[in-house]
Amino acid sequence: MKITDESKILKVLDDAIELTKNCNLGELAQYIPELAAQDPSQASIVVKLKNGKVLSSGNCQQSLFTLQSTSKLVVLIGMLEKFGIQKIYDWVMVEPSGDDFASVARLDQFGPRPSNPMLNSGAITLCSHIKGNSEEKIHWIEEWLEKLLNKKPHLNAKVFASERRTGDRNRALAYLLKSSNMIEGNVEWILETYFALCSFEVSPLDACYLPFLLANGGKNAAGEQVISLQTAIQTISIMATCGLYNESGTHLVKTGMPSKSGVSGYMIAVVPDVAGIVTFSPKVNPKGTSERGSLMLEHVSRELNWHFAI
Amino acid sequence: MKITDESKILKVLDDAIELTKNCNLGELAQYIPELAAQDPSQASIVVKLKNGKVLSSGNCQQSLFTLQSTSKLVVLIGMLEKFGIQKIYDWVMVEPSGDDFASVARLDQFGPRPSNPMLNSGAITLCSHIKGNSEEKIHWIEEWLEKLLNKKPHLNAKVFASERRTGDRNRALAYLLKSSNMIEGNVEWILETYFALCSFEVSPLDACYLPFLLANGGKNAAGEQVISLQTAIQTISIMATCGLYNESGTHLVKTGMPSKSGVSGYMIAVVPDVAGIVTFSPKVNPKGTSERGSLMLEHVSRELNWHFAI
Amino acid sequence: MKITDESKILKVLDDAIELTKNCNLGELAQYIPELAAQDPSQASIVVKLKNGKVLSSGNCQQSLFTLQSTSKLVVLIGMLEKFGIQKIYDWVMVEPSGDDFASVARLDQFGPRPSNPMLNSGAITLCSHIKGNSEEKIHWIEEWLEKLLNKKPHLNAKVFASERRTGDRNRALAYLLKSSNMIEGNVEWILETYFALCSFEVSPLDACYLPFLLANGGKNAAGEQVISLQTAIQTISIMATCGLYNESGTHLVKTGMPSKSGVSGYMIAVVPDVAGIVTFSPKVNPKGTSERGSLMLEHVSRELNWHFAI
Amino acid sequence: MKITDESKILKVLDDAIELTKNCNLGELAQYIPELAAQDPSQASIVVKLKNGKVLSSGNCQQSLFTLQSTSKLVVLIGMLEKFGIQKIYDWVMVEPSGDDFASVARLDQFGPRPSNPMLNSGAITLCSHIKGNSEEKIHWIEEWLEKLLNKKPHLNAKVFASERRTGDRNRALAYLLKSSNMIEGNVEWILETYFALCSFEVSPLDACYLPFLLANGGKNAAGEQVISLQTAIQTISIMATCGLYNESGTHLVKTGMPSKSGVSGYMIAVVPDVAGIVTFSPKVNPKGTSERGSLMLEHVSRELNWHFAI
Repeated sequence: MKITDESKILKVLDDAIELTKNCNLGELAQYIPELAAQDPSQASIVVKLKNGKVLSSGNCQQSLFTLQSTSKLVVLIGMLEKFGIQKIYDWVMVEPSGDDFASVARLDQFGPRPSNPMLNSGAITLCSHIKGNSEEKIHWIEEWLEKLLNKKPHLNAKVFASERRTGDRNRALAYLLKSSNMIEGNVEWILETYFALCSFEVSPLDACYLPFLLANGGKNAAGEQVISLQTAIQTISIMATCGLYNESGTHLVKTGMPSKSGVSGYMIAVVPDVAGIVTFSPKVNPKGTSERGSLMLEHVSRELNWHFAI
Repeated sequence: MKITDESKILKVLDDAIELTKNCNLGELAQYIPELAAQDPSQASIVVKLKNGKVLSSGNCQQSLFTLQSTSKLVVLIGMLEKFGIQKIYDWVMVEPSGDDFASVARLDQFGPRPSNPMLNSGAITLCSHIKGNSEEKIHWIEEWLEKLLNKKPHLNAKVFASERRTGDRNRALAYLLKSSNMIEGNVEWILETYFALCSFEVSPLDACYLPFLLANGGKNAAGEQVISLQTAIQTISIMATCGLYNESGTHLVKTGMPSKSGVSGYMIAVVPDVAGIVTFSPKVNPKGTSERGSLMLEHVSRELNWHFAI
Repeated sequence: MKITDESKILKVLDDAIELTKNCNLGELAQYIPELAAQDPSQASIVVKLKNGKVLSSGNCQQSLFTLQSTSKLVVLIGMLEKFGIQKIYDWVMVEPSGDDFASVARLDQFGPRPSNPMLNSGAITLCSHIKGNSEEKIHWIEEWLEKLLNKKPHLNAKVFASERRTGDRNRALAYLLKSSNMIEGNVEWILETYFALCSFEVSPLDACYLPFLLANGGKNAAGEQVISLQTAIQTISIMATCGLYNESGTHLVKTGMPSKSGVSGYMIAVVPDVAGIVTFSPKVNPKGTSERGSLMLEHVSRELNWHFAI
Repeated sequence: MKITDESKILKVLDDAIELTKNCNLGELAQYIPELAAQDPSQASIVVKLKNGKVLSSGNCQQSLFTLQSTSKLVVLIGMLEKFGIQKIYDWVMVEPSGDDFASVARLDQFGPRPSNPMLNSGAITLCSHIKGNSEEKIHWIEEWLEKLLNKKPHLNAKVFASERRTGDRNRALAYLLKSSNMIEGNVEWILETYFALCSFEVSPLDACYLPFLLANGGKNAAGEQVISLQTAIQTISIMATCGLYNESGTHLVKTGMPSKSGVSGYMIAVVPDVAGIVTFSPKVNPKGTSERGSLMLEHVSRELNWHFAI
């Protein structure tokens, strides 16, 4: 039985944070100065139960961090709500690719459709189908972020600038997609949108609203349907197989929690019908997953029987 | 809430069988005469609930069919029980590969370890670590089959002969694994074992004992632990991301049931903490998945809220 | 012995043109309207012997056609002259790739250096190392074209515009190269240069000056060294193994003439120490090689013993 | 002009040997003990001019070494003589692959036909089309070796045994070819033949008869046609683009001599219409090419103007 006793959960969260102190694995992401400069010692974990109650531990629940790849969920959810999954299938598959998150080779060999919307190529493709120019597309994302985080997030202008400056591989993906007519409209607008998408910043406390919604079948604590049940189910399923790129399989074995990683150190995880979880700790492995985040989720899963397969 | 009312379930199973009559997708597997000669109209579905109760519908629950790739689960479970997953990781990864079930290219480029134990290369690798010569290895498999099916299965000698005759791609995989020291011992013995593994036959009714065990945390209806909880959890997780090769992601979105397909037309699916399911219908898609089997699982998942993400 | 009798050569050229009338293979390149609108019946062949004598046959020696990929030779030669091959090796390999001329997968998997300078990725890389902004780079190319064609060529503005409009795959290659620091400077300038490079137009008669120079060890008819012997040797060698992308091997077996194809229908071929050859006929195969051009070179090679291996 | 003055040539050969003394690059092949135990200091070079005259230098012209991959030429020539190139094209392409000599991935992705007959997969394929069982196939090779070396060679039984013992990657290639019906008949017989093919041993002096025949248009010194001119031309052309696997391009730029390397340290090179060359020195680079052999050929090419492009 999945454990939902709050004092037990709190104890487990504190233990998880304690555990991270012995874990020194991973490195700060180096490709942009804003991530390279993060304080590596930070670690926090937030759980929001189905009943709306928030439990947390660690030292950075109030600070702001950029969502990076975790915000790919926002585009996916928004597009599922707008178009439904049958339409989405015209644009991306929902298959784990076995390759790197930014693999150009995979797209060239197995495309033209990106393997899934958690890959850079998949998220770029979805961004192309948001209506309008870059301002309008970014505005659409802001609105969805606000809906899914229950709070207006801010764009970190420095990170945004850095993403643009270092985004050549993403440009390669976008132009390859364009060359096979997989994306619509102006490539620069689409890339601008994608770089913005990575650059919104929120606190772990706020971020936890998103996985909570997913775990709760799309409903908020008042029981109102914020997103449809179908969208929640589909998003969780895609997280399960694709959320951590080519370590999604290992992560699911270990934690049993459909999750999405971000190179800033975020991890967003769902325990269906039980809780949403966010972890933050900035040292990541070569695949862009927070080492301490994985450790915490594994601990929580084991101690609370929160593995989906139980 | 997942529905467990038996009369409702029976109704849903009957409807699922009814649905298959309008589905004419897929082809009989052609690579061996025994599969090419199957009666394409057959369809059945069996559910074994956590309490041990069996419910079924369709016309072939008593007939025998070869397990084909679904028996890769048997080797995986046996080896997990014997060695534990840390040791298994030395031999195979547990990552969906994004490629074909018998891809040699993937193994050559991303190896030497096979991506996961549901691929031919992964199952061959595990077969190499079963102790003994081919007779001893096959005997080990028989014992595990008996344990996991609660019944002694039979080897279909014709299918076995056909698998050997047409098994050149599997031989290529085995020798490539051997060339990088990923498999141990005599290659011919290993291949013999692998071909035998595909050739055991059971009825859908009997086959359902295996996913029931997994759904029940490794315990039988009497509450005895047949396999460990850890093994059950790990197996279900691997099924979720790798069980249908490069359509595992789509299948999980649609059904939310960790499953394993076999080219004979079998599908073995798990609803954790609720039930094990077996479907059988022999017309398969190009990836080796039963078309009607998928349809039935999708129907059952939707009608009974058996999707894992709910 | 290689035949150099002029009347025999003329007869062979006329026969080659005659042969083309029975060859209806290939299609006009369709990706830009200027190529799709070419008169498919055109065919000509021009030979410029070591002694400077020009012999030709067919109906379009005076017309202008865009050089397309054949002008990759111009950048290669110019850069070899400026930097020498040791420096060039830092930027590109000189290995046939076995892949498509615009393969992104190959570059991603086997890079970061492009396999050879005859591929789009290789030519783009060399364009990046031409000094200056796009105007200066294009000016540099014009100067080299004038030197290697002994005539000032014109840029076809419509083709240039079409190349830019349809160049997304080349943009993908450029940004992928940029992401691994294989190209220097402003990507848009480099692409502008590359698109211009494809868009210069000359007559087959004028084009033949280039292979003549190569066949003559870099010297013009007056015996003056226009380019160095080393550059000529290296260029011919690269043409032999890489000039027709992934049909270079077959072409060398059949014709024994190191050649460079262009999607407009040009083929530039070298018979070392004997002659330079240009053929033009616009219907190309899927690899971008003129079908009739291949046929003519094969005929000439056989009838005049101009195969390098004799 | 290509230099053919014998005293000049002798001087150049002596200098080439002298040069090797400063070259310490490469390693002895380690995969079988017979190659790992070779004396690394050995170096010799033999030239056989069109007129039949033999010139040589170095210390091992009389010793016996296994031909390894250089004997792939023997199968290719024999099959070209028997079937003609049009038939050969049904079995293998003649395109440089850009990949490793034993790449399984390339064959799986770009097959089913092997890219060229200089790759292991290509040679195995040709071996399958030699008539008979393994004894008959090996006998056929012996006859061709005798014809092309003008001497009966011996099979080194230890090397043969070692090749069989370590040949798993070649087995993988053979079974993959079999699975796509690219090879005919019993796989074990074919592999036996292939392993034997690698294991014949000859002296550099004897080996030089083969490239001499090729350089001389298939004729021996008495002017008798031993193999057809067409076969000679085709073989030389294939050596030019494919003879050194994925460094064939670089080798052709540097030496201008179509060549074939062998992991024992042999290099067989052709200067069409001038001479055949054999070098031997056992330390090879990671691609299986003799480091000192390359150095000697480069020196000879430069000093004697023997580059094909001049």
